[in-house]
Amino acid sequence: MKKPDIASVAVVGTGVIGRSWIQVFARAGCRVRAFDQNPEQLARAMAWFKADLKDLRSRGEIKKREAKARWDLVEAVDSLEDAVAGAGYVQESGPENLAAKRALYAEIDRCAAPRTIIGSSTSTIDMTEVAAGLPGAARCIVAHPVNPPHVVPAVEILGGTETDRKVVKRTIKFMMGLGQTPIVMYRFAPGFVMNRLQSALVREAVDLVKSGVCDVQSVDDAIREGLGLRWALLGPFGVANTNADHGAAEYFARFGESYHALWDDLKTDIRFDDDLLRRIGKQTDRMLPSTHQTQRAWRDRMVGRIRRLKAEDPLPLKPRRRTKTGKR
Amino acid sequence: MKKPDIASVAVVGTGVIGRSWIQVFARAGCRVRAFDQNPEQLARAMAWFKADLKDLRSRGEIKKREAKARWDLVEAVDSLEDAVAGAGYVQESGPENLAAKRALYAEIDRCAAPRTIIGSSTSTIDMTEVAAGLPGAARCIVAHPVNPPHVVPAVEILGGTETDRKVVKRTIKFMMGLGQTPIVMYRFAPGFVMNRLQSALVREAVDLVKSGVCDVQSVDDAIREGLGLRWALLGPFGVANTNADHGAAEYFARFGESYHALWDDLKTDIRFDDDLLRRIGKQTDRMLPSTHQTQRAWRDRMVGRIRRLKAEDPLPLKPRRRTKTGKR
Repeated sequence: MKKPDIASVAVVGTGVIGRSWIQVFARAGCRVRAFDQNPEQLARAMAWFKADLKDLRSRGEIKKREAKARWDLVEAVDSLEDAVAGAGYVQESGPENLAAKRALYAEIDRCAAPRTIIGSSTSTIDMTEVAAGLPGAARCIVAHPVNPPHVVPAVEILGGTETDRKVVKRTIKFMMGLGQTPIVMYRFAPGFVMNRLQSALVREAVDLVKSGVCDVQSVDDAIREGLGLRWALLGPFGVANTNADHGAAEYFARFGESYHALWDDLKTDIRFDDDLLRRIGKQTDRMLPSTHQTQRAWRDRMVGRIRRLKAEDPLPLKPRRRTKTGKR
Repeated sequence: MKKPDIASVAVVGTGVIGRSWIQVFARAGCRVRAFDQNPEQLARAMAWFKADLKDLRSRGEIKKREAKARWDLVEAVDSLEDAVAGAGYVQESGPENLAAKRALYAEIDRCAAPRTIIGSSTSTIDMTEVAAGLPGAARCIVAHPVNPPHVVPAVEILGGTETDRKVVKRTIKFMMGLGQTPIVMYRFAPGFVMNRLQSALVREAVDLVKSGVCDVQSVDDAIREGLGLRWALLGPFGVANTNADHGAAEYFARFGESYHALWDDLKTDIRFDDDLLRRIGKQTDRMLPSTHQTQRAWRDRMVGRIRRLKAEDPLPLKPRRRTKTGKR
């Protein structure tokens, strides 16, 4: 992996997402200063980072020397000023509400050097609103990962209306240098890209169970032993492209009317209620009797293995070169 | 793999789906008699089967002896009667329209021994309508795979109103014996389970591109380097279960309102038109400049590798024991 072009970063907010970013940055060789307004959360994050390095060693994925090098790159600090001092990039993963985000951004903007990029892990908030009125609004950007980012590489990248296009480009380049995959957005939409796609699938999954077409296990098997096996390799357009001899446009032209008819049949007024939640919980517990801890550890190590399979035998994809933020 | 409990099968209709079923059955050690009303299509299917065995050998996935054993199990025959004679299970993969299906089913039902199950690869038709009025309606069932079934194991299983519950159970057991994963349905819904789930995701994918939130590559990267990495391992309920300390019900209770809000924001009146198809085609071609043949071969061998990873380190899932077809 090429070294990323920003050598020092600050991690501000060290909950489940923030602590995972520590591993992302340290893995890429960045110096990391981590800060959290709650010192106990910061201590827990450092303990997690240590344990994760130990896990990686015990699975033979990294050597002792590499674990030590990563550990030495990371420093827990007592103040926001110390975290941000000298950082070329700040990853903010604070509480998910606009007032708290605005206050935290104002403080980071006050402390950070002029060229420092301030990226946010927010999954819901428009950067236009966070950065409104800030002197450094041009260097504020959303960099929203999947949970956890040290396992799953996709990161949504979207500026606000005042964000400098060069900041967008530099953030995309930096994320690629970290080994993450930037999901470039041209404009804000609630839920960004990934949560919109996920929620569309979840709505139909919930309706299938609610309406009694099938149970939780059939839905999950349909994904994990069916559609999801392809989606780990190709997105919906790539899948369409491989399903017709002349590609995606031919596929959707041929099956367009079938899609329209199915779309019209999907229910849209689904709501969770206590009975539905109880049924989902009961059926999911029956399907997955192991502990959540076991399931998470399995998920994370298996995602790592799938990524290695893909790295060893990649489909020749055209690398993204154009990073303009306008509509094509 | 345990030997399936039905030793002889007939494959009727040998297009892209039917020919793939030949590999599924032969791999499991079943004797296969294949028939197609179009002799050229049958010859192409046998040529494909031979080439696929050769590919498996060249990748070191099977030995010469195994390839020969599979080849010897399969016989192309000249008539439906010959195909069905002695078969304990018939997999029908004929043309996808009700009149043709009904005619073919009537003929198979006339030729097949009384206990023989007649499964259909149909992706859209209700078995109640296909089997209406047939003497053997009780042994008629849908067994709809993902394309191609020898690569992706999920198979949707659904009887019609006249289908014997014992036939449903025997089909589920047989599919598991073949190494496939039965997706058990309790009642008919257009698109069954998988095409409904896929179409829900595709609608939002298409809208993101159509409305200019992002391009085809961002959607596909969001899936293949984000959500899809988890979906190869856990379905939407399993993912929810690992995203909260107390499981899926807690997760959906906590984020229920966020889901409701996002669901209300997803557009539902999306339609393909020429301009949209052109944009999708152009952006997909730019993303995937390799040939469709290359992409398909890569997809199929990579799915095989992901399945082997999962077979070597499986999450302890509770095996499905209950196969009743009523609503829980």
